[in-house]
Amino acid sequence: MPPSTLVAEAATCSITLRPGDSDGYLLDARDLKALAIASLTQVGVPAADAETVADGLVGADLRGMNSHGILRLPVYIRRLIEGGFSPVSSFDLISETAGTALIDGGGGLGAVLTARAMDLAIAKARKNGIGAVGVRNSNHNGEGAPYVIQAVEAGMIGIATTNGSPIMPVWGGKTPMTGPLPITVGVPTHMEKPIVLDAALGMSSRGKILYHAERGQQLPPGWLVDADGNPTTDPNWVKNGGWILPIGGHKGWGLILMCEILSGLLTGGAIGQELTNLYDDLDQPQHNGHFVIAIDIASFIDLDSFRRRMDGYVRAMKASELAPGFEEILMPGEIEFRRAARQEREGIHLSRKVVDELLAAAKEVGVQVRTTA
Amino acid sequence: MPPSTLVAEAATCSITLRPGDSDGYLLDARDLKALAIASLTQVGVPAADAETVADGLVGADLRGMNSHGILRLPVYIRRLIEGGFSPVSSFDLISETAGTALIDGGGGLGAVLTARAMDLAIAKARKNGIGAVGVRNSNHNGEGAPYVIQAVEAGMIGIATTNGSPIMPVWGGKTPMTGPLPITVGVPTHMEKPIVLDAALGMSSRGKILYHAERGQQLPPGWLVDADGNPTTDPNWVKNGGWILPIGGHKGWGLILMCEILSGLLTGGAIGQELTNLYDDLDQPQHNGHFVIAIDIASFIDLDSFRRRMDGYVRAMKASELAPGFEEILMPGEIEFRRAARQEREGIHLSRKVVDELLAAAKEVGVQVRTTA
Repeated sequence: MPPSTLVAEAATCSITLRPGDSDGYLLDARDLKALAIASLTQVGVPAADAETVADGLVGADLRGMNSHGILRLPVYIRRLIEGGFSPVSSFDLISETAGTALIDGGGGLGAVLTARAMDLAIAKARKNGIGAVGVRNSNHNGEGAPYVIQAVEAGMIGIATTNGSPIMPVWGGKTPMTGPLPITVGVPTHMEKPIVLDAALGMSSRGKILYHAERGQQLPPGWLVDADGNPTTDPNWVKNGGWILPIGGHKGWGLILMCEILSGLLTGGAIGQELTNLYDDLDQPQHNGHFVIAIDIASFIDLDSFRRRMDGYVRAMKASELAPGFEEILMPGEIEFRRAARQEREGIHLSRKVVDELLAAAKEVGVQVRTTA
Repeated sequence: MPPSTLVAEAATCSITLRPGDSDGYLLDARDLKALAIASLTQVGVPAADAETVADGLVGADLRGMNSHGILRLPVYIRRLIEGGFSPVSSFDLISETAGTALIDGGGGLGAVLTARAMDLAIAKARKNGIGAVGVRNSNHNGEGAPYVIQAVEAGMIGIATTNGSPIMPVWGGKTPMTGPLPITVGVPTHMEKPIVLDAALGMSSRGKILYHAERGQQLPPGWLVDADGNPTTDPNWVKNGGWILPIGGHKGWGLILMCEILSGLLTGGAIGQELTNLYDDLDQPQHNGHFVIAIDIASFIDLDSFRRRMDGYVRAMKASELAPGFEEILMPGEIEFRRAARQEREGIHLSRKVVDELLAAAKEVGVQVRTTA
């Protein structure tokens, strides 16, 4: 649906709450997007930007990345009300060359700023073969996948990273200075699904560790340390000053450091302890930085040949003899594409708590939500 | 010493063999470089190219990356004699834009081709903010560090990757299709040592596992699987069809896949099983592909400010409270810089076997080596 339609409906929307697993509901992705757009536009976010944010949040739920999904909407709304997010995302050019740009986001919406940054990188790559755009003074930008998919849809390889508030130390230290930052890469194919690697560089996500904690399950060794930095399999330490280990020890930490350098230092933006957590100081901007690269495949070789060769390579990989314990070889992003297709049809499962918070946030900003069962 | 001097001395050189640890020798880095240059020029490698290769090999030994060091020289010489390496590294432009280039290396020397590719990427970044160069039809290019250090010396962030012959399967498979490919990144600083991350994306190097095997030591869990893909702590499996696991499981494998896509598919070059191992089919090119990126920091922010802020960040990280088991916080590349400084003074330790092979290879190509004790 075009943004204009959505704006007209901004102050009302309807959602169908079907019974889901255990204590939750199954919701239609379109209902959730409309709810998000209505709520965001009510607090001053332009309709097109509200749609970008809604697509990012609901898209994450569709792909099963719920920790980056619609459950973030209430804190986004709260930050928009209290001033921690600016509803209008300025996109001020600090510096520019033929192949690069540095943007000041003025405390706007991370998803909006990163999407625009990738659009600019794509435009530069179209002319120069490669384009890179850094953003500073931004905020939480959610899942990295949608930004690299922009590049994929333009026939390019997309790369995105971001920094975030500190929840882990540097390798060998105990002082929280960084986080399990992500490298996200998208690669186009022909008939096969594009490759979309979205790799947070920690051994596990916080969400997965909390899932173990809720169920009283121990963690595999090597995921977590306690607040003193000693190895632990007790997932509860993630809530009590423990931290998630980087993948491959010092190697993953080195990659995290590079994400921080590109997102925070190359942009002249905030780094590590200068960043605010999404849930703290709601009237203050978080100051995240982002960095995106678009590589124009056709500037190197024929795009169609590349696409077809990617298909062949994917098929050859998937035809490998299976290792013990595997039923299928999956490409990066493949399971997320399948899950999204299924949840587009069947609905997205959300807990009662998350739905209650969404409805309360919508109500607070004056959206009249008609719920049907 | 300038290449011209070395060429004049090509057919003779002298090395001092001082007694080293256990059964080996301590050798001066300059002696080793002169030996490598003399041997390479004798089989037709131009003097400047021979110096690039020698610098790469001996530089790896200096930094302690011996698996990429001078021990590779005999097989390089053998390949140059038998035709698997072309002594003259052509650098044919297949495609070019303002910010990118694709090079056909014509089966030349990997180190020479990658160094030239990074020079070209740096020149493009100087004009366009960012430059990326792919190389196909190349060969083994050794350690990635020297290429990103070229960018660092130009005040830029350098990124390099390569593909290699298949020694590990895709994630979930058993058929060898790729390797623990490396991501190498270099970042300039002011007074602090530059950051040089050289991360092969496997849990360990083959060399380190063989070291455990020689000493009859078990491996930590999570490094290796046996030939059937079952977890093992027996290091001998690395010689018998087992394979090194990627860092972070599917995450590290996804990053390896991206290295393969940039080095092999984006370049229209060879991938996975199409590549030849350095020690097999010595009369055939290996067909490696490489991919390098240079990012001009001054195109984003003031370079001097960046350098000083990097210094401050490095110092803040190193001042972290220490985790258990750590005596110091080290930046990526720091230990290698220290080791290189020490070994420049004290000499490089090589086993008697490696020295014997170096001397035999030199003799075979007509280099008269005067050895002194």
